[in-house]
Parts: sequence; C-alpha cells; structure tokens
Amino acid sequence: MRLAVIPGDGIGPEVIAEALKVLGEVIPTAEITRYDLGAARWHATGELLPESVLGELRDHDAILLGAVGDPSVPSGILERGLLLRLRFELDHHVNLRPARLYPGVKSPLAEPGEVDMVVVREGTEGLYAGNGGLLRKDTPHEIATEVSVNTSFGVERVVRDAFARAAARPRKHLTLVHKTNVLTHAGSLWSRVVEEVSLQHPDVTVAYQHVDATTIHMVTDPARFDVIVTDNLFGDILTDLAAAVTGGIGLAASGNLDITRRNPSMFEPVHGSAPDIAGQGIADPTAAVLSVALLLDHLGEHESARRIEASVAFDLATRDHSSPGGTFAIGDRLAALVSS
Amino acid sequence: MRLAVIPGDGIGPEVIAEALKVLGEVIPTAEITRYDLGAARWHATGELLPESVLGELRDHDAILLGAVGDPSVPSGILERGLLLRLRFELDHHVNLRPARLYPGVKSPLAEPGEVDMVVVREGTEGLYAGNGGLLRKDTPHEIATEVSVNTSFGVERVVRDAFARAAARPRKHLTLVHKTNVLTHAGSLWSRVVEEVSLQHPDVTVAYQHVDATTIHMVTDPARFDVIVTDNLFGDILTDLAAAVTGGIGLAASGNLDITRRNPSMFEPVHGSAPDIAGQGIADPTAAVLSVALLLDHLGEHESARRIEASVAFDLATRDHSSPGGTFAIGDRLAALVSS
Ligand SMILES: CC(C)[C@H](C(=O)O)[C@@H](O)C(=O)O
Ligand SMILES: CC(C)[C@H](C(=O)O)[C@@H](O)C(=O)O
Repeated sequence: MRLAVIPGDGIGPEVIAEALKVLGEVIPTAEITRYDLGAARWHATGELLPESVLGELRDHDAILLGAVGDPSVPSGILERGLLLRLRFELDHHVNLRPARLYPGVKSPLAEPGEVDMVVVREGTEGLYAGNGGLLRKDTPHEIATEVSVNTSFGVERVVRDAFARAAARPRKHLTLVHKTNVLTHAGSLWSRVVEEVSLQHPDVTVAYQHVDATTIHMVTDPARFDVIVTDNLFGDILTDLAAAVTGGIGLAASGNLDITRRNPSMFEPVHGSAPDIAGQGIADPTAAVLSVALLLDHLGEHESARRIEASVAFDLATRDHSSPGGTFAIGDRLAALVSS
Repeated sequence: MRLAVIPGDGIGPEVIAEALKVLGEVIPTAEITRYDLGAARWHATGELLPESVLGELRDHDAILLGAVGDPSVPSGILERGLLLRLRFELDHHVNLRPARLYPGVKSPLAEPGEVDMVVVREGTEGLYAGNGGLLRKDTPHEIATEVSVNTSFGVERVVRDAFARAAARPRKHLTLVHKTNVLTHAGSLWSRVVEEVSLQHPDVTVAYQHVDATTIHMVTDPARFDVIVTDNLFGDILTDLAAAVTGGIGLAASGNLDITRRNPSMFEPVHGSAPDIAGQGIADPTAAVLSVALLLDHLGEHESARRIEASVAFDLATRDHSSPGGTFAIGDRLAALVSS
C-alpha cells in the first residue's frame, strides 16, 4: 500500500501524525511519502501544486490530507489552487461524508435521536467549477458571476454511487437535496437523473427535499436521513451542519473518491486547519483517524477499517468528554485500542 | 393604509385570516383588497401574475402574502412565476428575516442561549436571477447551468441597509456570510463592498464567516449573531435554519422590502403552504401575525407593530406549547391581547 500524505497547514500535521500512528498499527507495511504542499511552500516558492508533484501523487494508491488554509494566504488561493485542484485533477467526483452520532458523544440538539447518515456530495462540478468572472471591477457597474455547471455525465455517476450505497444499507433510503423550485435547470437535471436511476433500484425508497427545508430537518429530526445525494455546494453546507449535529467537525471524516479508480482517492477530515489552535497539541485527531478508516475501506481493507471504527467508537463511548486529552493522548489511546 | 392581500395556497388563507383579524384591531381603517393568485387561479386560467394585477398591486402601500405552492403544480411554476416574479418586479432587494428565540419557546438546541438576530438577505440577484439553461436536454451530453449574478449596485444597497440596521441595534455587530474561498469572484465583490461601507460605520464591528461554518455556529452558538448580511441563496438556507433554531418556521416572519419605497414591500411568513395540514385549522398563524408587525414597522406604524410583537411575546410565554390551540384560537387570543 503506497500512500501519499499531505499534512498541510495548521493542525493538519498534528492530526495526521496521530492518524499515521493508528494506520501503522493495522497496516505496518504501508509505504508513506510526504508532500509539503500548503501555505509554507506557497510562501517560500509561490508553488501550490507543481505538475511534477501532481504526477507523483497519481502514482499512489491513495492520498491522506490533513488540512490546508492559513490566515497569511489570501482566501481562495490554497483552496482553489491546491485542495480543489487536487479534487478536480484527480476526478474526485464522489465526496463521501458520513455523519454518525456515536454513543457517548454530545450533540448540540436536545433530542438528536439515532443519527447515522451518509452524504454523497458531488465533487467536480456545480458552483465549484470555477466558472465565474468579474466585469468592470471597482466601478459602480461591476458584475460578478459564478456559474454552476452540472452535466448529465457528472450527476449520473454520483447518483448511481449514492443509490448503490443506499441499497447496501439497512434502511435503503435516499434523499435528493436540491432547490428545484428556484434552480429549475440544474434541479430538473438532478431530478430526472434520480428518477431514472431509481428505476434500477426498486428496493431503495427515494425522497426529495429542498436544501432550505433540509437544514430544518437536520436540527429537528436528523435521524430521518439515511443517504443524501446532493450537489457540490449544498453538500458542503449540509455536511458541516450534519457534522455539528453529530458532535462537531472534530469527528467528521471524508473521502474524495474517484470511483473508477483511475486516480488515487483522497481522504481528509472535514475540519479545516484551525490556525487558532494550531501547534498547541489540543486538536482532536479523531476525524483524521476516521478518514484513515474510509481510506482503508476504499482500498478493500475492510477488516482494518472496522477495527479503527470500533476503536474510535469505544474511545468516544468511554472518554471523559470534558477533558478528552490532547492530540497525542487521543492518538495513543486509539493506536492502543486498534492493536489490542 | 391600502393593503393588497394575497392569501395564496394551502394554509396561506387560514393564517392570513388571523393576521388580518389582528391587523383590524390596531388599524381598523386599513383598506384591504384581496388577490386570488396561486395554484387555483393557475389551474383555472393558466395565469400566474397578469400584468393588470401587477399594476394594481403596485398601487398599494404594502402587500401581505400567505404562501404559494401546491403539489398539483410542477415545482418552480408558482415560485418563479408568482412569488419570485413579485420580488423581482417590485424590486424587493432587502429580504428581512429576524430570528428571535421568544421566552417560553422551545428550541431544538439543548442550550440555545439568547438568540436575537436579523438576517438581511439580498432579494433580487444571485442564483435567483433565473439565468440558467439546459443544453442537449435528455441526452448523455446534457449540461444544466445556473448563474449567480451579483452587481455592485445590488450588493451595495443591501449591505448599506444591513449596516444601518446593525448600527441601530445594541450590539452593533454585522457578519458577512459567503463562500469567498470558492466563489472567489462574487466573494470578492461582497467582501470589498462590506469593507467600503464599513468605513462609514466605525461603530459597527464586522465579521466574516463561510456559509458552511455558519451552519455550525447556528447550532452551537446562535446567540453570537446580531445582523447577518448575505446573498439570496445563502440567505434562503440560513433563515430556515435560524427559524428552526428559534422554535420553527411557524414563528418566522419576513419582509421583502424595496427600501427606496418606489414599489410596495411585501410581507410573508417564512413557512410555505404546508399542503399536508391545509384546511384543518391547525396551522400556527403567529408567523403571519409577526409579518403584519414588520409591515406596520415599514409603514411607520411603529407603536402598532410593538403592540403586536408584545402580544405575540406574551402569548408565546404563556401558551401551553403542547396544545397551543388551533389557527382561530391563536388568532383570537392574539387579537384580544392586541386590543387590550
Ligand atoms: C476549504 C473548502 C474549499 C472546502 C470546500 O468548500 O469543499 C471545505 O469547506 C470542505 O468542505 O472540504
Ligand atoms: C418558495 C421559495 C421560492 C422561497 C425562496 O427560495 O426564497 C422560500 O424558500 C423562501 O425562503 O421564501
């Protein structure tokens, strides 16, 4: 197993160290190559993602990423030039984001119920396509546009993946989230594709919800959701909300998948680089560790993935949430649990 | 005071009846003209908003709308052809949506704190501009686009309004919500406008938050927000979430304002037509009643607006929330409180 690791900025390197500690317990033979992409490299060399590095990354089985982003870098530079560039160049069309409320974890909701959902977010289209522009900048007649691009090809492959995931889950339920009553063109495409693919999955029940109404249900009845399929931007918004409802982005893992396996998939915690707490050893590495579990699942190492998940579940059920320990301590506990 | 009333579909007519009952107690001389726009008219005549009706509507001091939308009408027809057409034709650029957790009202959050925010949502641009299209429909090469259009003119007027509202509130705090790290063009315009206008409001403190992170704070610490200014789509999403956090869209009022007063502003509950409970007399008319308070504020009838708000606050603090009474009963209580 050849893994490329991009620790990145802020708390990225801290949580990645623990994630690799846990990985080492289950796959001691994994070959790790580190890439120093992120704010520091950009400051030092102006480089975000050199072609040569991109080429090397392609030559791995998977990528593990900590976080990118730093207040010293103007907004959008690292996001568009590194993180999103990776997702687009490597055709990460399925952005997989499970949200599960683990026993012992406190939700901000008074009565969350048993939350266990997977958001299948489209990862290579929509408003993330970067199709926008400014006209007459800095004049009173300035116009800024952003174009959401949705293709039959792009929507269908992610919808198919979402149906397959729903079919494999006990509840077999899929919710399309969009805003079809306003975004009538993109909404029409998404709705038609879901309808078509549903014909091949009579076992999966399908619901539709507007994105605004979905945020209401996320706080009043999140347990209703099983698999959600949605576009890039709605997925971005809803997965932060789903993470918050299930105890915070300190626990939320994600996979950026090329399900054709032509390119390596990339796994990362949903949280950002959190510069405010970086370097203090207090970031929770659990999301990074759970991202390793998603990575192992993707590479077919299901048993190791289950062991990591079970260790996290045990730790969350038994940890003292008012003082869970620092980054190292949590990593040590998880590594010990995984190897026991 | 000449008011146009569009009861609309579903529970719209039910909640509007109670809202007018309450209005009658404070402004008995108000002249009301009803317009039967909505699903029934569309089915009967194919009309959504005839030019003649639009002309008549313009000739009023304000518009009170119940709700539009019915499952018998394809998604988008009534929304784009009636509701959004009204907002756009009447240049309702400030979509004002207060979210306040009234004492006695239960939030789905375990510890909501004292929530009292106003979302100033842009109302005439962004992804709501209707600038989209389908290419190669029903082929494997179909492309659907949606264009977010943002103008200096459109952003500035809503940002100015938001700053003025923030300056008039005790906390004097304004948060710009956007997704500047991905929507770099529109994000740049919004950020620059906020920065420029802030120079004229040194008394207002300004914060920026990405829309995804905002949903987290909405459920972990909603009390942090004072005034939020954001674009049309983010505002749509966040105001449903803010409404949910403060006890549900049964209580959330909104104003679609043309702050130049060239056109009548329009007031409506944030909730929809709720066809599932229509005709049963169980819809809570409180959001419609609070929309009347916003209407009166806009028309300078501040004392009457305060009386309505105080009556709602009293009713919410004292009502038995497990059996609040039906639509009529709540309307009767509020009417009695307002006139007492
Ligand atoms: C950092 C940002 C570009 C990214 C996104 O918007 O996708 C993040 O919010 C995420 O959800 O992974
Ligand atoms: C019905 C729909 C078009 C509308 C919107 O998206 O603005 C509604 O959700 C709202 O928030 O008023």
